[in-house]
Amino acid sequence: MALCAPLAHAQPKSGPSVNGFGIAAANGPVEKWGTIEIELAGPSTGNPFMEVELSAVFRQGQRQLQATGFYDGDGKYKIRFMPDSVGVWQYETSSNRPILNGKRGSFTAVAPATGNHGPVRVRNTFHFGYEDGTPFWQVGTTSYAWAHQGEQLQQQTLQTLATSPFNKIRMAVFPNSDVKNTPSLYPFEGTAPLQWDFSRFNPAFFRHLEQRISQLRTLGIEADLILFHPYDKGHWGFDRMPADVNERYLKYVVARLAAYRNVWWSMANEFDFLKEKKPEDWDRYFEIVQMSDPYQHLRSIHNAFVLYNHTKPWVTHVSIQNGAVTEDYERAVLYRDVYNKPVVYDEVKYEGNFPQRWGQLSGEDMVLRFWEGAIAGTYVGHGETFTEPSGRAWTGQGGTLHGQSPARLAFFRKILSESPAEGLEPIDKWQGNPFAGKHAQYYLGYFGRDTPTAWPFVLFKTGLADGMKFRAEVIDTWNMTVTPVDGIFEVKKRDNYTFADKDGRSIALPGRPYMALRIVRVP
Amino acid sequence: MALCAPLAHAQPKSGPSVNGFGIAAANGPVEKWGTIEIELAGPSTGNPFMEVELSAVFRQGQRQLQATGFYDGDGKYKIRFMPDSVGVWQYETSSNRPILNGKRGSFTAVAPATGNHGPVRVRNTFHFGYEDGTPFWQVGTTSYAWAHQGEQLQQQTLQTLATSPFNKIRMAVFPNSDVKNTPSLYPFEGTAPLQWDFSRFNPAFFRHLEQRISQLRTLGIEADLILFHPYDKGHWGFDRMPADVNERYLKYVVARLAAYRNVWWSMANEFDFLKEKKPEDWDRYFEIVQMSDPYQHLRSIHNAFVLYNHTKPWVTHVSIQNGAVTEDYERAVLYRDVYNKPVVYDEVKYEGNFPQRWGQLSGEDMVLRFWEGAIAGTYVGHGETFTEPSGRAWTGQGGTLHGQSPARLAFFRKILSESPAEGLEPIDKWQGNPFAGKHAQYYLGYFGRDTPTAWPFVLFKTGLADGMKFRAEVIDTWNMTVTPVDGIFEVKKRDNYTFADKDGRSIALPGRPYMALRIVRVP
Repeated sequence: MALCAPLAHAQPKSGPSVNGFGIAAANGPVEKWGTIEIELAGPSTGNPFMEVELSAVFRQGQRQLQATGFYDGDGKYKIRFMPDSVGVWQYETSSNRPILNGKRGSFTAVAPATGNHGPVRVRNTFHFGYEDGTPFWQVGTTSYAWAHQGEQLQQQTLQTLATSPFNKIRMAVFPNSDVKNTPSLYPFEGTAPLQWDFSRFNPAFFRHLEQRISQLRTLGIEADLILFHPYDKGHWGFDRMPADVNERYLKYVVARLAAYRNVWWSMANEFDFLKEKKPEDWDRYFEIVQMSDPYQHLRSIHNAFVLYNHTKPWVTHVSIQNGAVTEDYERAVLYRDVYNKPVVYDEVKYEGNFPQRWGQLSGEDMVLRFWEGAIAGTYVGHGETFTEPSGRAWTGQGGTLHGQSPARLAFFRKILSESPAEGLEPIDKWQGNPFAGKHAQYYLGYFGRDTPTAWPFVLFKTGLADGMKFRAEVIDTWNMTVTPVDGIFEVKKRDNYTFADKDGRSIALPGRPYMALRIVRVP
Repeated sequence: MALCAPLAHAQPKSGPSVNGFGIAAANGPVEKWGTIEIELAGPSTGNPFMEVELSAVFRQGQRQLQATGFYDGDGKYKIRFMPDSVGVWQYETSSNRPILNGKRGSFTAVAPATGNHGPVRVRNTFHFGYEDGTPFWQVGTTSYAWAHQGEQLQQQTLQTLATSPFNKIRMAVFPNSDVKNTPSLYPFEGTAPLQWDFSRFNPAFFRHLEQRISQLRTLGIEADLILFHPYDKGHWGFDRMPADVNERYLKYVVARLAAYRNVWWSMANEFDFLKEKKPEDWDRYFEIVQMSDPYQHLRSIHNAFVLYNHTKPWVTHVSIQNGAVTEDYERAVLYRDVYNKPVVYDEVKYEGNFPQRWGQLSGEDMVLRFWEGAIAGTYVGHGETFTEPSGRAWTGQGGTLHGQSPARLAFFRKILSESPAEGLEPIDKWQGNPFAGKHAQYYLGYFGRDTPTAWPFVLFKTGLADGMKFRAEVIDTWNMTVTPVDGIFEVKKRDNYTFADKDGRSIALPGRPYMALRIVRVP
């Protein structure tokens, strides 16, 4: 790129063009929340990963953000940036190498294209929203090692995701030795399985990962990037690198990836199985990511049997594995009260037919967990473990989905998307009440495995007043139907805690499980 | 007392004599974990509460503990101490008044009398034990204002407690304006309701409280002392004193009461209803109590709708109000994983017939909560809210118990006391399993409202090996019977997760709710 050259500030209607990694050239315009990259030529001798420091300050008016650069091999140095407002941005580099130091330039950020809502943020304490205000109703899935498979399988996974209900995927940076394939790329220079030069990253590995993250971004899918995991088991040793390598790795990953708006940082999967790391190591790694990331992407950590202390300030939302908690909204709600942060039950067992009890949920049980979680004002993650002839399973390697839950989760996500943008809040959680929503406006109820034949029209009192009117729909969450209930219900105070339909009516239900009710205020 | 005089170190077989406040004179021997008191004459002019500082260091060999003294009115100054080991203790006072400074003496601590097990401590992360090693199986009750009632009613409460199943009582230091009686004593000098001199405590109020705590100690009942509560509502203003008064009050209470081994500190009841105090105030108050208490009695804080962050280091155990969490052991277990501390569900609704939904549990539901809590490896608190002709209820004013739960809680406590001293640990909590106990040794199962007619003899695998033998008993927790099951069950590996009786036998159950099973290893 032409450093310090005056830049044309044209704002083409078609939006900025990007390369195969979803990155705009530094001299062209970039979308707000897109990624722009400054490329500089610098030293290729010595060990640039260890010896060269590079960053840039990006300024717009009184605001400035600092982004760290990285060495991308072959004497190329890059600094990536995600502008969060439109207009002209100025930048200036800093480096301990004169050739990289003091380079100035500017570029224009233009309005985001359709589908670009910015990064996901915590909103209303317990919920998520994109930075542009669009609600983010998390319906996540898991495919730990999909990006380490053969090219054809990765393409198939992307195709599957494109038509899936999922708007978030948990995926690991490091390959997974539990999964029987040999990656073609590794994160460090050296020779598999164990002869690594931990002082030199392999840029090709990260460029590949970036391409996948960029493709997910295009699909509108958040990449919940798992930074460490215990499934290496010493095979390549990425689970037991020295502390200084871990820290350098975290900084390198953040420098490369933070400018992708769809990145979330998951410090680990089943962190407590990583026996080489102590509790205080995780605190330090969290802080490194927190300090390194100019955009403050979401951060959490996923457990096996021991919960991380999610009250710590660097945890933005709670990521939990638990096999039983989402079977019941009255269980799932409890962690909300503890943490006062969004709670995502990222692992609640998987739909499948594995012999292990964590991988043999029925489709019905998988879908039930999403609904119970929603009624608790929390979010749930999907996984699939059907034994394929290939030996693969979605949650390990990606590919295609076989379960009965994804179609129902698409229906579930549609129902969520029609709910109040503030998020579903439990109604009367102290007592336990199968409704969530927004007091006096919107109620979504779910009866789980119960098979009621009627629901007396009785709502918890908060916000209600005599004469308020509501319409109702009966939702079959498994058969994916929404059936309007005839008539309008007008409420009247019933007792110290509830309002009921003034004529004492009930809503008929079909006596099947997995039924829900939607009750919406009408003028 | 004769200061600095050599003391006789006789150890009478009958144990040391104590006064009406359960306090041994400083020149006589004292039981280990008993209370000894140094009384000194000092200034009665000015404001001794504000102006005089007094403390003493108590030494035995290389150990020393510092106890703060207090002004008890009429020119009398006192320093109380609870020795935690037998033998001779030396002490020396410090004061900003020469007459109180540098006083030395010694006394002998003798072996504890029967029933004196020392203070209760956290043990095995999630459980409690007395300092002498005896398990403490918490079966608590609640009577907030019993010590502020008329003398006759207080005596009746003590009589009730003497034959009750309860080994802990939650009780407030401050009187309760919700309760319609006028206390005869107040904690400050002044005139009710609002003309207080917050710079002067009323020693008579505290002497009375001490007598009650001493009487509870004699009964073997822990006093879970509630230091602040929101039920004053500005009537006397003890819920909205200035911060410096709160801090002085806490130090005075700790100085007076810490030497009673049966004291627990509950910073507040429904702390989040005390709107005058901010979250950081509670942190500071916790720290004051933590720093002031030489014996480190148990500390917690009780909530209404907002949970305190119990991960903070000064919280020794978790005290929770929740109306629904103990209805299901799979809910109740969740907070254990968060906090890694003992969890006491101190308020789970009350047995009674109040119109409020928090005060109308059936006896069955009250007892069920204790059992579900136990299976979760947690502890539960009792309360009773029957409308008496007097307008009183146990949980407000004390008196007598009318409910059906106390008899069953006595039975429950007996079952607990026959359980492993380490405490009941959930068996296979990840999956959800209605048993708690000690792997391969002891299993206590509870079926709640389910009404099984048989239980297939299948246990989770941990610790089991083919050929291990068990006996079983069927427990009716409501009718309070224990029925041995004929024969011995020998287990054999069944699948990846379980062992079963080698002959595939089941245990017959009566098809009633509230049944439990006890399975104990035999040689």
